[in-house]
Amino acid sequence: MIRPTTFIDAARLARRLGLKRLMLASETFQYTGSFKFRAALNVVSKVPQRELITASSGNFGQGLAYACRLLNKKCTVVMPNTSARTKVEGVQEYGGIVDIVDTIKISRAARVADLAKKYPDAYVASAYDDPLVIEGNATLGKELADLQGDVDCILAAVGGGGLTSGIITGLRASGSNLPVIGVEPLIANDAARSLRAGKIIANDSEPQTLADGVRTPSLGQHNWKILKDGLARIIEVSENSILEAVRLLFNFANLKAEPTGALGISGILTELGAFNGKSVCCVISGANVDSELFQAMLDTTKS
Amino acid sequence: MIRPTTFIDAARLARRLGLKRLMLASETFQYTGSFKFRAALNVVSKVPQRELITASSGNFGQGLAYACRLLNKKCTVVMPNTSARTKVEGVQEYGGIVDIVDTIKISRAARVADLAKKYPDAYVASAYDDPLVIEGNATLGKELADLQGDVDCILAAVGGGGLTSGIITGLRASGSNLPVIGVEPLIANDAARSLRAGKIIANDSEPQTLADGVRTPSLGQHNWKILKDGLARIIEVSENSILEAVRLLFNFANLKAEPTGALGISGILTELGAFNGKSVCCVISGANVDSELFQAMLDTTKS
Repeated sequence: MIRPTTFIDAARLARRLGLKRLMLASETFQYTGSFKFRAALNVVSKVPQRELITASSGNFGQGLAYACRLLNKKCTVVMPNTSARTKVEGVQEYGGIVDIVDTIKISRAARVADLAKKYPDAYVASAYDDPLVIEGNATLGKELADLQGDVDCILAAVGGGGLTSGIITGLRASGSNLPVIGVEPLIANDAARSLRAGKIIANDSEPQTLADGVRTPSLGQHNWKILKDGLARIIEVSENSILEAVRLLFNFANLKAEPTGALGISGILTELGAFNGKSVCCVISGANVDSELFQAMLDTTKS
Repeated sequence: MIRPTTFIDAARLARRLGLKRLMLASETFQYTGSFKFRAALNVVSKVPQRELITASSGNFGQGLAYACRLLNKKCTVVMPNTSARTKVEGVQEYGGIVDIVDTIKISRAARVADLAKKYPDAYVASAYDDPLVIEGNATLGKELADLQGDVDCILAAVGGGGLTSGIITGLRASGSNLPVIGVEPLIANDAARSLRAGKIIANDSEPQTLADGVRTPSLGQHNWKILKDGLARIIEVSENSILEAVRLLFNFANLKAEPTGALGISGILTELGAFNGKSVCCVISGANVDSELFQAMLDTTKS
């Protein structure tokens, strides 16, 4: 029920970036448009509860809603009022109940706690901090293990850590020692600071990075256990480099990516020298972005 | 050396279009960004000449340039001065020589004839009217034959007829009887008129449809032989429906398509009733489109 990742050998973009080879592992055509469906399906199929509640800026919510439809369960997704419209509509189209919160007045976590009290039989699903999420995302790591020998490293976005901890788990379970490099917006660099400090450090408030998929308060506990020694390192990137990465993927690899999905390419742009002549795989995590925002991102006259 | 087509089960878009199932066969990630590379590689590898000349609005030119680079041959691509900039740059980046013509002053065919006189040892490659082109594109038809039983029909763009004649050839060679429906812009409907007349009818001048990949003068002779009885029928579509199809693919299937690539979806939009509840495969032929044009197409406030 999982769509295998779409491998794209992006020769033209590789040339532009000075790479020997650039392999994109695109999850933009995964069911519900992001890798999150892998985790969502695993959670929904393995917990006994018939009803689930989650907080999500959108991609995990869409994945959960679609997984619940497939398995005849019910879900409520708490979404901030700043969510991309396409993500809100996506959750609704897949059959989920959307619960919009004004994050200035009440945190997503607090609203989820309220709902959990109201519906004591529901499973409260975390988008990242759950062994079932990591296990679901590990299916991607297992697919990436096929690149062993073809690429030197794998770059992927770090938010709550669900993606990278899953990739590392899947790779290692498949016998691959490919290094995994995390990429994080500089203005949301809690994971980089956590690695430096040797313990989880949280952001003071929700960082307003363009990469809305990584606006997480901190790494999850379960993710941290895997990432603290599992990640090769983290590259911290500027908002401008994220924008440029979205454009490069669109113009030279024909790929629509949401800002979070472009973080891997953004990491290469940030350290062009380090990657020169290397063979690299970038995981493109998703592509759910409002049309208006995408137009604005393509418009180089405005930046 | 051919990248297999990317099959995308587009559940969200299918729902919007009232289809039971919508399978996209996307050639947007084919080498050089369109299906044309299949034909180009076949031509370049099978003709003995070391040098090739072609006229192309861009996609066949890019395919030919890249195939020549791979096989250490040389090529010149005659392109109209109205070509998408990304296509001109693409030919150059892949190592081809671009020869820009002002089509008001001299036709592409006339310029190719001039060059052929100047370089008598060169092979003049047609983008569609050549058995080697049809044979190359038939590799896609062979892949589509796997859909037998899963879909009711296949929709694809008709310009010179290279794509549809190749698909039909490949399908039938693989024992599939899946009907192939051609889609053509109403303002460039020479193929539809040809089918009605039972003979090739040419456009009076180059039709200025948004779908620049099908601005061909007429069907090719080799293509006509296959298409006159091989095509189930042709749907003629408005420019507005092409625009809407580009947006739907982008917003609900996360797919970047050039206008020509969106013709299949445009065909469904034009006959929503006929396709209601059906399972359909649309071939997305390519995605090489200038960023500025794409932004303008996404901008619903301007249309």
